[in-house]
Amino acid sequence: MYVGVDYYPEHWPETRWALDAQMMQKAGFNVVRLGEFAWTNFEPAEGCYDFAWLDRALEVLARHGIRAILGTPTAVVPAWLAHRYPEVMVVDKTGQRRTWGVRKDTCYSSGVLRRFSQAITTALATHYASHPGVIGWQTDNEFGGSNDCRCPACQAAFQDFLRQRYGTLDELNRAWGTHFWGQIFRAWEEVPVIVDTNGQNPSACLDWQRFYSDQNVRYQGEQVQILRRLCPRHFITHNLMGLAPDVNYFNLARDLDFVSWDNYPVWGRPEVRYDAALAADLMRGAKHKNFWIMEQTAGPCGWGSFNRNVRPGELRAVAYQQLAHGADGQIWFRWRTCTAGREQYWHGLLQHDGKPNRRYLEAAQVAREYHLLAPLLEGLSVRAEVAMIYDYDSLWVTRFQGSFEGNDYREQLKRYHRALFRAGIGLDIISPADDFSRYKLVIAPELHLMPDALARRLEAYIEQGGTLLADVRTAVKDGTNLVHDRTLPGLLSSALGIAIPEYDVLADKAEIPLTQGFAGHKATLYTDWIKPTTAETVAGYDAWWLTDYAAITRNRLAKGIAWYVGTIGNTPAFYDGLIARVLADAGITAPLTPPPGVEAVVRSGQGRELLFLINHTEDCQTVPVPTGRKELLTGTTTATTLTLDRHGVAVVQLR
Amino acid sequence: MYVGVDYYPEHWPETRWALDAQMMQKAGFNVVRLGEFAWTNFEPAEGCYDFAWLDRALEVLARHGIRAILGTPTAVVPAWLAHRYPEVMVVDKTGQRRTWGVRKDTCYSSGVLRRFSQAITTALATHYASHPGVIGWQTDNEFGGSNDCRCPACQAAFQDFLRQRYGTLDELNRAWGTHFWGQIFRAWEEVPVIVDTNGQNPSACLDWQRFYSDQNVRYQGEQVQILRRLCPRHFITHNLMGLAPDVNYFNLARDLDFVSWDNYPVWGRPEVRYDAALAADLMRGAKHKNFWIMEQTAGPCGWGSFNRNVRPGELRAVAYQQLAHGADGQIWFRWRTCTAGREQYWHGLLQHDGKPNRRYLEAAQVAREYHLLAPLLEGLSVRAEVAMIYDYDSLWVTRFQGSFEGNDYREQLKRYHRALFRAGIGLDIISPADDFSRYKLVIAPELHLMPDALARRLEAYIEQGGTLLADVRTAVKDGTNLVHDRTLPGLLSSALGIAIPEYDVLADKAEIPLTQGFAGHKATLYTDWIKPTTAETVAGYDAWWLTDYAAITRNRLAKGIAWYVGTIGNTPAFYDGLIARVLADAGITAPLTPPPGVEAVVRSGQGRELLFLINHTEDCQTVPVPTGRKELLTGTTTATTLTLDRHGVAVVQLR
Amino acid sequence: MYVGVDYYPEHWPETRWALDAQMMQKAGFNVVRLGEFAWTNFEPAEGCYDFAWLDRALEVLARHGIRAILGTPTAVVPAWLAHRYPEVMVVDKTGQRRTWGVRKDTCYSSGVLRRFSQAITTALATHYASHPGVIGWQTDNEFGGSNDCRCPACQAAFQDFLRQRYGTLDELNRAWGTHFWGQIFRAWEEVPVIVDTNGQNPSACLDWQRFYSDQNVRYQGEQVQILRRLCPRHFITHNLMGLAPDVNYFNLARDLDFVSWDNYPVWGRPEVRYDAALAADLMRGAKHKNFWIMEQTAGPCGWGSFNRNVRPGELRAVAYQQLAHGADGQIWFRWRTCTAGREQYWHGLLQHDGKPNRRYLEAAQVAREYHLLAPLLEGLSVRAEVAMIYDYDSLWVTRFQGSFEGNDYREQLKRYHRALFRAGIGLDIISPADDFSRYKLVIAPELHLMPDALARRLEAYIEQGGTLLADVRTAVKDGTNLVHDRTLPGLLSSALGIAIPEYDVLADKAEIPLTQGFAGHKATLYTDWIKPTTAETVAGYDAWWLTDYAAITRNRLAKGIAWYVGTIGNTPAFYDGLIARVLADAGITAPLTPPPGVEAVVRSGQGRELLFLINHTEDCQTVPVPTGRKELLTGTTTATTLTLDRHGVAVVQLR
Repeated sequence: MYVGVDYYPEHWPETRWALDAQMMQKAGFNVVRLGEFAWTNFEPAEGCYDFAWLDRALEVLARHGIRAILGTPTAVVPAWLAHRYPEVMVVDKTGQRRTWGVRKDTCYSSGVLRRFSQAITTALATHYASHPGVIGWQTDNEFGGSNDCRCPACQAAFQDFLRQRYGTLDELNRAWGTHFWGQIFRAWEEVPVIVDTNGQNPSACLDWQRFYSDQNVRYQGEQVQILRRLCPRHFITHNLMGLAPDVNYFNLARDLDFVSWDNYPVWGRPEVRYDAALAADLMRGAKHKNFWIMEQTAGPCGWGSFNRNVRPGELRAVAYQQLAHGADGQIWFRWRTCTAGREQYWHGLLQHDGKPNRRYLEAAQVAREYHLLAPLLEGLSVRAEVAMIYDYDSLWVTRFQGSFEGNDYREQLKRYHRALFRAGIGLDIISPADDFSRYKLVIAPELHLMPDALARRLEAYIEQGGTLLADVRTAVKDGTNLVHDRTLPGLLSSALGIAIPEYDVLADKAEIPLTQGFAGHKATLYTDWIKPTTAETVAGYDAWWLTDYAAITRNRLAKGIAWYVGTIGNTPAFYDGLIARVLADAGITAPLTPPPGVEAVVRSGQGRELLFLINHTEDCQTVPVPTGRKELLTGTTTATTLTLDRHGVAVVQLR
Repeated sequence: MYVGVDYYPEHWPETRWALDAQMMQKAGFNVVRLGEFAWTNFEPAEGCYDFAWLDRALEVLARHGIRAILGTPTAVVPAWLAHRYPEVMVVDKTGQRRTWGVRKDTCYSSGVLRRFSQAITTALATHYASHPGVIGWQTDNEFGGSNDCRCPACQAAFQDFLRQRYGTLDELNRAWGTHFWGQIFRAWEEVPVIVDTNGQNPSACLDWQRFYSDQNVRYQGEQVQILRRLCPRHFITHNLMGLAPDVNYFNLARDLDFVSWDNYPVWGRPEVRYDAALAADLMRGAKHKNFWIMEQTAGPCGWGSFNRNVRPGELRAVAYQQLAHGADGQIWFRWRTCTAGREQYWHGLLQHDGKPNRRYLEAAQVAREYHLLAPLLEGLSVRAEVAMIYDYDSLWVTRFQGSFEGNDYREQLKRYHRALFRAGIGLDIISPADDFSRYKLVIAPELHLMPDALARRLEAYIEQGGTLLADVRTAVKDGTNLVHDRTLPGLLSSALGIAIPEYDVLADKAEIPLTQGFAGHKATLYTDWIKPTTAETVAGYDAWWLTDYAAITRNRLAKGIAWYVGTIGNTPAFYDGLIARVLADAGITAPLTPPPGVEAVVRSGQGRELLFLINHTEDCQTVPVPTGRKELLTGTTTATTLTLDRHGVAVVQLR
Repeated sequence: MYVGVDYYPEHWPETRWALDAQMMQKAGFNVVRLGEFAWTNFEPAEGCYDFAWLDRALEVLARHGIRAILGTPTAVVPAWLAHRYPEVMVVDKTGQRRTWGVRKDTCYSSGVLRRFSQAITTALATHYASHPGVIGWQTDNEFGGSNDCRCPACQAAFQDFLRQRYGTLDELNRAWGTHFWGQIFRAWEEVPVIVDTNGQNPSACLDWQRFYSDQNVRYQGEQVQILRRLCPRHFITHNLMGLAPDVNYFNLARDLDFVSWDNYPVWGRPEVRYDAALAADLMRGAKHKNFWIMEQTAGPCGWGSFNRNVRPGELRAVAYQQLAHGADGQIWFRWRTCTAGREQYWHGLLQHDGKPNRRYLEAAQVAREYHLLAPLLEGLSVRAEVAMIYDYDSLWVTRFQGSFEGNDYREQLKRYHRALFRAGIGLDIISPADDFSRYKLVIAPELHLMPDALARRLEAYIEQGGTLLADVRTAVKDGTNLVHDRTLPGLLSSALGIAIPEYDVLADKAEIPLTQGFAGHKATLYTDWIKPTTAETVAGYDAWWLTDYAAITRNRLAKGIAWYVGTIGNTPAFYDGLIARVLADAGITAPLTPPPGVEAVVRSGQGRELLFLINHTEDCQTVPVPTGRKELLTGTTTATTLTLDRHGVAVVQLR
């Protein structure tokens, strides 16, 4: 199993390298990521390459049994490149070309940039294709974020993208509904870039985001093509950013062997690391296979100011959480805190002083344990009976058109996910294009966009015995972000057995008590005014103007069951109750119910089943466990309960 | 009486038109507004006009007895126009030309834009001048808001505007006080545009706003001139936006036959619709005649997210409130919710699905009732004994130079208006140029700008028996937004019988108890330190440093009385008490005192007097009424009280 | 002693001047500042000068015994200059050239601007060099603030600045640590301007601020050189802005005879004027000599809205506070409130009406008293035993890289300063380059940047018997804003007798109880995890993960004592307790302990010692004083206590 650190030999005197490698080896580290910001070191002048320094670094590392993942170094262009070819820099919304000096600020429509990107990738790949110390590649760094550009090249590329997508102007006009506000295009050149997602055509805004995402995928693809050709024995990955919203990760992952991601879950006060679990499930879902952690939090993080330091045991708990969710490799960011530049305060395992310290020792403990567990983990992953759909299109459109105040697509996913977490149930986060039939339960939060095919597939899933949970604003729009002319929930009306003639928001923190099966709970933010057709009413609203409507419904359809939740519950307890009922419908049970703040995840395969328990709290926790199984970290055998220290972890071999 | 909807046939298949018209007719609708965003439909290519589609739509509508108001379609320029003539787009504060794709983003100084605007207006007017289905025109759409431009053409136009206003550079320098900070102009070309209203010369900032307003008026005027010439039998109106601050509506209304306005009073939690009443009174005041509602809220509204749905009865109550205040025509926005574009969630009467629904049925009920009331309403309007001055100059200058933190000109008007509303007293909102002698009481909140002539007219009004209420920051400035060198309240000192040697703010929510007639109340935000000369002190301040000063004074001047309120009261009760005393001085009594949340408005004329009662609350309300009168909606005869359902309305014929 | 007002004869009719001068004389005023915004009056057209109007004004003033300080009028360029030479205007971050019309918006790299600045300075200096009414000059007005520019001239000047500072590109690359993110420069022209201090290289950001500061110093220097040559008998000063952060005042002061400053301490609710005391101490520290007040608050202040009016006695208390701290001249801003321009509401002594009023009378009282005290004050200043280091570099870097949320360099200084204020202890605010040996105690808050030489000097200071107080983030960085590779506190580790292997933030308002000597108090915001080596632990943390670490330490080093405070205390009481212990170590005692809200300051010299007592509260206060001394304002002799009215002051001659 690969365990290691992100390492920047170019930041330190060459005389230090041997000590670094020795300390890494002593800690049990066997891999480093290198070079992803070193373009100017590799190509100090246009077309002049220098790999000697990295060769020397690899040699030192190899001497201590450490292998390397190389980054294509395109996240920062050299100063000489930006100075000589200013057109590589992004033009922002105010029409100004970005000043070189930060990062991730180059235009992916720029032919100049792409030519240089391909050239440096080719040179690196050629040089390291058969280097024994190199095992794989990371493309660029953290695609997405800040380099959306409005230069003329981007406008032309956007028009091209649309021409490919829609073929004719008539079809574009239809797909965008440009009859509204008299915005019909008579020529492709008239199509503008998007600078105002609060004012411009929403269908255009969605396509702009798709275009941006695709530009990233294409840019990576051009590097991948070169690497595949020149380095056939190397793996190719990229460090994604969990729930980051800018790039469609399902698409970005397609060209990769596996995805990696950068996990920084230590902020503010200590808390249950729900989001890191959700992000890990999405990362695993991106290719339906295990992933790596390419940057694992190692200390206080931040640019202008840094955040909380990990407390004793916390660095280990963070690592085990990812291991449980499917991390097959794990790399701490970074080895040693940099003394220069914008990330001076983004702390590595070592402080600036480079001395072994508490965090280094804790990481070394993790590495030692991982190497012991490795043989048992081989081939194991999370095998879930529950899937939750993650739809980038719905995410994107709700960011600029939330439809009701306070609506947040990812927050909505989290409401269900956290209830499953508390119930001790694992889940996969999947694309709407994935196969639903593998799952007993599919949760489909806020599927605003509902292309016909997706509706048909969801309906078929239910009919064939699946349990579906859908909710507010489902199927409001079609695939091009137009509203359709069907009564809501549109194409899912018969599957859900309801009609929604009207809906409403609950502004200014207004709440409405729920009735029947959810008496004691309250509706917040939004209410669908539901008329069941074939569905039963599970909860209604206690408000004078809503007495005739349902809030939550449940519909039997052929062999399956379809839930519809027409509001947002006011507390986690609402979601715990809801999930309990839906799980019961789907016939799903948890291996155990962990106490609050303890996470229980099962990895299985190869006839084995490992139960990971992670205590996210600062109190000791007692967990009910199957008796007579081996706890692998202590080598003890379980009684009926198992006690976890604060931030403690355990790995119980169930089978 | 005209009742109807805003309708966009170009958004829907032609096959649907007949059903739409039939449903409208069934609901009692007899008018639609059409076409105000359809420029690209009317002129798909430069100089090529196509009115056939609208001809067909008008024909379908006519078949169902529905007539049309046409909009000049200039609120959105066609894509081809913006692409071919980029100079029509606004240049914003950062020097960047606006990207086409939203609306209301064109430069009114642009000769190209104005030429195209006149051409399309001419073509439309020529085509429809004698069309039997067309009854009138709406110019453009909602002038004001977002298209303030800093292009070179605007700078030149601004310099021209100033040359016309001031004649000589010396006079400009004097009017703006450019001796401050050594900003004297030596040539007209040196005069800059305004980009920083917090830093540039305040007199220049005021003139910049006047210029912007005038550019709107001129732009409309050019269309009106064409319409008057070609369509002499059609009325011309425009849809104003109530209290929107950007354009001087008194000036914009001058060229119109009557004003219309767009009323969207349903936001957040249910509440008393004070602001819609105030806005209606201003709209009626714009030309001292009744008005139309051109867009009446029909459902949840909003671009990115929408707001509250109307509850049962609320759509009707909203409509009756405007009828009571003088709406002679009423048009719901919009017929059917659009499935495309930025206003997908700005709901019409019908949902996207186009089916008859609750809101449609309630609107139909209103239409039926209106047609019954119509004969009795003919020639009736609100006849008020109270006027409140609405001064755009004072509004504008306080927006960039509030003089004390928390000062808000329109909020100040609302304080008095709401007290009158609660007291059951109607009022006119008037221009400072209007005749005061028609009123027993004139309220003049925060008249910062006090040209000499206005001061003389106010003084004469009091002398001749009027009652005036003035307040903080009155007469601080002259007509060009310079402070004068008189002790405050300047030219009104003798009329008000006071001098104000100093003043102060109450920062950080500090409050000072008031004394004498207003003991129990508190001063907030600001204090004038008043020395009465001939006035009596009605209230003083309870603070060690203010014992020698008055807070509120009352002065007899010849036959009249002048109040001065030198602070902001801390509660509505303060204003209720104040208004009660001032009304008593003016000899004004209400026909009845409604319970809290019920609005009582009288429309009279032609020997008739109709009392409208609107329940803005969600509880039943019992209102004391004159006995033995006819309630027109139920046909019953009144006892001593009348009961209103939640959101209920009643119309009692007093005479 | 000079007492007077800022006066703008060019704002008023010439016929008024005599009355103004007469009223000034009557008030005891003998000096005015003139002309600092009158460039367009002095040079109405390019190269055409007109000083006649000022000659006439000076003559009128001289007739009433009033002398003048002239401002070089370069804070606002004439409209004709900006129009003819647009390149003098600042280019802001969005790449747009600033629109002329505010002030302080010109580019100091512009050769055109500098040529005109030197020409008008030369013309003025030539004309007034031997004018008997002129006593000195103020350069420009309030350097710093808003004119940081990104034009090509500034980029070139910045590159020049760096070439001078670092000599070679290699050295620049080293000093900035451009190996991070691969930002190595291969040519000087590649060095960009700074537009994003949150993203660009922090060392570059620091140098950008130093460059901006130096540009101001150079611009002033070019004027000073001319004035020195032409007006050898005149003093030269500038009106600084207290704690304003943009320009290094130690450097700006170097070319001046003495500094002046603009004191506006009356905002919000009445409160103890701590900050005005701190600012005064910095102003005195800028040249280690007494200063002038060039603009003293005279009434409500503000542009868009104004703030609180001074209450009776407050204007006098404000003035005496500055006198106590070393003001040798005092000028109220402004004589009369201007009726035009952006500062219409920045009130002078007189209101707009120009009549004698309460504030005028209070200022006249102050002037009278000052003239009586003047002979006793001659040669007296604050002689402090405590110094606090004010380091612009550390201030600057923490503004864009605070290192922990809520960190504010100036706020940190205030925590200690206020405790000293409450303890009745005077202090000097000094530059890190100043001599420490003059002081018994040196407080060095947050010295992020610690060049080697400074560390050596601080260590030597302790060794030779000094007491040092250092705190969080001390010595994190070297002189070019790179982190070093030493364990914290770096070069001060042995002097402080501690090592800091880790540190942490307390986010989301978390707090940790302190132990031992500071039990009852709490740590907030940040914690150093301290391992004492030779130091004793004064306080620890009560938290499970910090039991092994100290929070506050005290170290004996040779003859001295060094304190280290590794956190931020939660209350003023924490700092009172801390300062009491540190003062005890340093052997410093206060002449008396004033009651809360009363300030006690001693000015001494020439064998005399004057104790100033200022009551910052609105209650009477009783102060324990030495008996039998003369209170100079009343002429009475002290008993054991002295009573101060609200806002009252007293001056007791101790010796």
